[in-house]
Amino acid sequence: MKKIGIIGASGYAGAELCRLLLRHPDVEIAAVSSKSFVGESIEDLYPVFQQVFERTFETEAAVIEASDVIFAALPHGLSQELAYDVIRQGKIFIDLGADFRLEDETEYQAWYGLPFTHKDLHFHAVYGLPELFREQIRETTLVANPGCYTTCVQLALAPAVAAGLIDTSHIIADCKSGATGAGRTLSKITQFMELNEGMHAYKVANHRHTPEIEQTLRAFTKEDVHVTFVPHLLPVNRGILATCYAPLKKKMTAAAIRAMYAERYGDEYFVRVLGEQHTPNIGNVRYSNFCDISIYMDERTGTLITVSALDNMLKGAAGQAIQNMNILLGLPERTGLDMIPPAF
Amino acid sequence: MKKIGIIGASGYAGAELCRLLLRHPDVEIAAVSSKSFVGESIEDLYPVFQQVFERTFETEAAVIEASDVIFAALPHGLSQELAYDVIRQGKIFIDLGADFRLEDETEYQAWYGLPFTHKDLHFHAVYGLPELFREQIRETTLVANPGCYTTCVQLALAPAVAAGLIDTSHIIADCKSGATGAGRTLSKITQFMELNEGMHAYKVANHRHTPEIEQTLRAFTKEDVHVTFVPHLLPVNRGILATCYAPLKKKMTAAAIRAMYAERYGDEYFVRVLGEQHTPNIGNVRYSNFCDISIYMDERTGTLITVSALDNMLKGAAGQAIQNMNILLGLPERTGLDMIPPAF
Amino acid sequence: MKKIGIIGASGYAGAELCRLLLRHPDVEIAAVSSKSFVGESIEDLYPVFQQVFERTFETEAAVIEASDVIFAALPHGLSQELAYDVIRQGKIFIDLGADFRLEDETEYQAWYGLPFTHKDLHFHAVYGLPELFREQIRETTLVANPGCYTTCVQLALAPAVAAGLIDTSHIIADCKSGATGAGRTLSKITQFMELNEGMHAYKVANHRHTPEIEQTLRAFTKEDVHVTFVPHLLPVNRGILATCYAPLKKKMTAAAIRAMYAERYGDEYFVRVLGEQHTPNIGNVRYSNFCDISIYMDERTGTLITVSALDNMLKGAAGQAIQNMNILLGLPERTGLDMIPPAF
Amino acid sequence: MKKIGIIGASGYAGAELCRLLLRHPDVEIAAVSSKSFVGESIEDLYPVFQQVFERTFETEAAVIEASDVIFAALPHGLSQELAYDVIRQGKIFIDLGADFRLEDETEYQAWYGLPFTHKDLHFHAVYGLPELFREQIRETTLVANPGCYTTCVQLALAPAVAAGLIDTSHIIADCKSGATGAGRTLSKITQFMELNEGMHAYKVANHRHTPEIEQTLRAFTKEDVHVTFVPHLLPVNRGILATCYAPLKKKMTAAAIRAMYAERYGDEYFVRVLGEQHTPNIGNVRYSNFCDISIYMDERTGTLITVSALDNMLKGAAGQAIQNMNILLGLPERTGLDMIPPAF
Repeated sequence: MKKIGIIGASGYAGAELCRLLLRHPDVEIAAVSSKSFVGESIEDLYPVFQQVFERTFETEAAVIEASDVIFAALPHGLSQELAYDVIRQGKIFIDLGADFRLEDETEYQAWYGLPFTHKDLHFHAVYGLPELFREQIRETTLVANPGCYTTCVQLALAPAVAAGLIDTSHIIADCKSGATGAGRTLSKITQFMELNEGMHAYKVANHRHTPEIEQTLRAFTKEDVHVTFVPHLLPVNRGILATCYAPLKKKMTAAAIRAMYAERYGDEYFVRVLGEQHTPNIGNVRYSNFCDISIYMDERTGTLITVSALDNMLKGAAGQAIQNMNILLGLPERTGLDMIPPAF
Repeated sequence: MKKIGIIGASGYAGAELCRLLLRHPDVEIAAVSSKSFVGESIEDLYPVFQQVFERTFETEAAVIEASDVIFAALPHGLSQELAYDVIRQGKIFIDLGADFRLEDETEYQAWYGLPFTHKDLHFHAVYGLPELFREQIRETTLVANPGCYTTCVQLALAPAVAAGLIDTSHIIADCKSGATGAGRTLSKITQFMELNEGMHAYKVANHRHTPEIEQTLRAFTKEDVHVTFVPHLLPVNRGILATCYAPLKKKMTAAAIRAMYAERYGDEYFVRVLGEQHTPNIGNVRYSNFCDISIYMDERTGTLITVSALDNMLKGAAGQAIQNMNILLGLPERTGLDMIPPAF
Repeated sequence: MKKIGIIGASGYAGAELCRLLLRHPDVEIAAVSSKSFVGESIEDLYPVFQQVFERTFETEAAVIEASDVIFAALPHGLSQELAYDVIRQGKIFIDLGADFRLEDETEYQAWYGLPFTHKDLHFHAVYGLPELFREQIRETTLVANPGCYTTCVQLALAPAVAAGLIDTSHIIADCKSGATGAGRTLSKITQFMELNEGMHAYKVANHRHTPEIEQTLRAFTKEDVHVTFVPHLLPVNRGILATCYAPLKKKMTAAAIRAMYAERYGDEYFVRVLGEQHTPNIGNVRYSNFCDISIYMDERTGTLITVSALDNMLKGAAGQAIQNMNILLGLPERTGLDMIPPAF
Repeated sequence: MKKIGIIGASGYAGAELCRLLLRHPDVEIAAVSSKSFVGESIEDLYPVFQQVFERTFETEAAVIEASDVIFAALPHGLSQELAYDVIRQGKIFIDLGADFRLEDETEYQAWYGLPFTHKDLHFHAVYGLPELFREQIRETTLVANPGCYTTCVQLALAPAVAAGLIDTSHIIADCKSGATGAGRTLSKITQFMELNEGMHAYKVANHRHTPEIEQTLRAFTKEDVHVTFVPHLLPVNRGILATCYAPLKKKMTAAAIRAMYAERYGDEYFVRVLGEQHTPNIGNVRYSNFCDISIYMDERTGTLITVSALDNMLKGAAGQAIQNMNILLGLPERTGLDMIPPAF
């Protein structure tokens, strides 16, 4: 039984890691920490854990000390020093924050306003999207777990980019996210009376997931990649739906592209390329680690349209992090993650 | 007091017309009809009308007979004969259906599978989007009330198209609609347990509002107009949010375009061009006749982004129909329509 | 045009007063205040007011100075001094808070922990439930506007109590409220992700509306009145549903009691006693000033069951306050309040 | 590996059985049936099953033939003949319908309008509420799985009744259910636009779960048991919240009763008696087999108040049915059922 530590367990991604890892057969949670709630009990914050997981938040140092694998679910800027400590001790660090996602320090500076404090760590870090970078993940001990929006867009677009089908300089990603994506911190925007029966865009063409999407797609093409990314907030708890548009370079049917995607993801349990008669719905992936993808074509304008859906807390955060852990520990990738989404 | 008849009053648009017209100071509802519920009472279908509007559904003929102005809210294909009867009698016909929206019979055939049965009526009909075609509306007695999605997209894009700012051959309209847009007919898709906590795209690049959007935009440019239109269903009762993307022809700031829009719609009470710090939210227009519009720019890719929001039952259907009626009757356009949206 | 001032206009009840009074034909809003947002603009807090009501929050003194009628929507404890100022100047004070609702200082102390600071004002104040106390309201200038839960329970039970039908020592009021009842202040309980798809009881048998309900019912009987009141929070924006249970003193049919209620409320526009085949639904009263009531009987146990519904922001707060204002100003009671609830 | 058959797998309870049993380590689903969809695929009805459980609906006979344990999730009246067939073949029958819940044929006739067709089977059948009747369940092969409301009320009240604390002739059960309780059949009441932002009571003091609640409580007392039961429909997918009220026979503190409940359910994993500072919330039990219970007291009126919550599809239907199966098969009761509810 590997010992697991969760830093930032009072936030949504951290709490979801707890929920999932408690039922993972090959690991046990050794300790959890929280900056704001140290000394308090996780079941007081999240009553779902009553009589199931009653544990006191400890310090980060205590968590690292007690664990073989450390997950960190923290705001950006807080993971670099932690990673340094963890890696130095020969342990595994899986970062759900943004600090190790961008390879280029200039880009990180531009979007996050902070420098790389341990440049060597950034060389060591691997972007943890298993369906695209499994081999690299297998060989690291420092994983940068992707953002929720980015996973949904990258899985939908990478095969088309890799096959050279689309003009990557004019990609549009119109994304819709459930409210848990905004995190646990109180805010007017996520008050029930403000969000319920409402919907709006935010950070239009200005969201930090933009460079992350572009960086990954660039790994599959030599051409310029520009993505216009607009996120929207949905009145649902969970789920991301990404509708992406890109000009086709040459004529091709939806069926042919769908077949190519089905082939590409044929061995990937967590990616479901849907048949023509179905369409991704966040209601069909919630509480699961699936990412559903459909392929459409606007033949009138020669535009490839992908629609993809995932649960932002699972495949978009904690689920993917555990998938990465399974790879690093040599476990079957589905271990602890084969939940079937409830239909209702 | 003008006498008003509502054909198809058992549907959502028809019931909303009733609710609004009952509080309109210059008209009275003479009669209402329903194909499926003739002889039944509207307050049994819609208990909100108890002790307020208790009325039996009559036949279409009885409604036309009793009224000066006839609204029809019917599935496509059913309005042409009705319009013929009404216009022949010198009365006013406002059609909330699709039969008179497309000017080109070939296009109507292609998208709706039906012919024009009274070609002269189609010449007579005016597309009822007052902010764009007010003068033409003033001179007709047969109004084709626009679709909900189309109103939201057209108001957002027409000024940019008219000013020649964007490449109209590559417009993308990613739209999100509340469930009332699907109408009152029982369906699995709009069962609570299916839609709640869900979201999905439908009729991807294949929705009948596509030619309607293109037709209107073509009125403002000599260039080709192609719109890739993807609608999505939202788990809210009301509201449409349209996020539109178009390549800018030449560099321009968001502020400059915003100022141009503010100028264009400066005298239009129902169109609110929002300042830089606000963004349209369907929660800020519900139960009102407003359409809110914001202008954004992705400077990295030279893409104009508009976000617009309206209530699909008001500015997207019944409200706009009454706005058209007010114009036709020479009443102030806001009469009966100046509801302030509730904030919560 | 009477000049109206709203103190506490940044809260939900205050903002709703603004929305409604802006469309009231016989008054105009002279000034609004907010303790937390003085100097800021109401349309920044509530974007629904953009281009409709752009006004800066002033001080309370400025509001009183500018107005003939002053509404206060404040937490308890803050209205007594304000009322003193207003009444001293011969103006009208309508308090949406709790300070003047309870007649008995000991009871107020017990539930609110504060003394009566101006005892004479409390003699002067009238409990503003027009359907029960219209004549007294007409003769005062200081109205204590009832609580949301209490209005819903009192209208449902007062006729049965007055007719001596029920054992008033064992009344149970199981109430369910929408989230706006919790007010605008940020809280974890009303975060979307916490409330959505959830439901729970709170302040079980310990809510401050308990003595208020009992006080009103005592006005209609000489017997003891004890109400076990349990409120619950619903994942909807608006609405209160009250299900009340009381043992019948002697056998009587639901039909007979329903007829008695219909008679009692026959002239009351805002109270709709529903027929046997309908049942109150918060969805059928939202955004209106109606209170719908149904009568049921458990014949097996001799229990009278009433179900009643209202919009907590309208008949439960701002709507009722305006109804009181209309009475005080000698206006028709429905003025500015005859909104028909939307069916969807 | 025991072979499992699910009759009525196209309905919500049947589909939920599939979802849960697919991840149960000791059984495998042999076959599923549906009256309306025979020959069709379950993944077409429920796209969540795509690439996970693609199976064609067979006939009931085929299901029985292929299986050792047969679950039936059918409308009442359809299980008796099926049970006869299954039991005759020496197999296990777990009925999620109502046919075997009531022991008294007269009562069954009165509430369901049908006779007992195989009286001996009814003697054989055991009411499947493990926390109350575990020993009897262990010895049968025909389980009548309880209703959703009834489980929630019975677990909350049985200890108090058994201890003789309350006057059982005046129990009130005010219950609130999520929409899945209404089943999969299309209906206006569960259309999104009708239910969302609404709430109402139904079958007031006239719901078929009434005699079932009373029958179970009578097993724990010699006194008369009368329950006034009022169900309400909530705009959430899942969950039942039951607020029950009963007069205390003699004074007792909430703390003492809470301690008694904690003792009574101390060994029951699926029943969580909450501490004083917590309250049941349907959001804290969803997608789990837990039933959370809190104890309150209205000391002013001597009324015991229990609040309990469960997921109507799990502990209220499919989860409890599997719990019963585990008992019958001699498996640990938690097998396949130890899901931790997601906090959001």
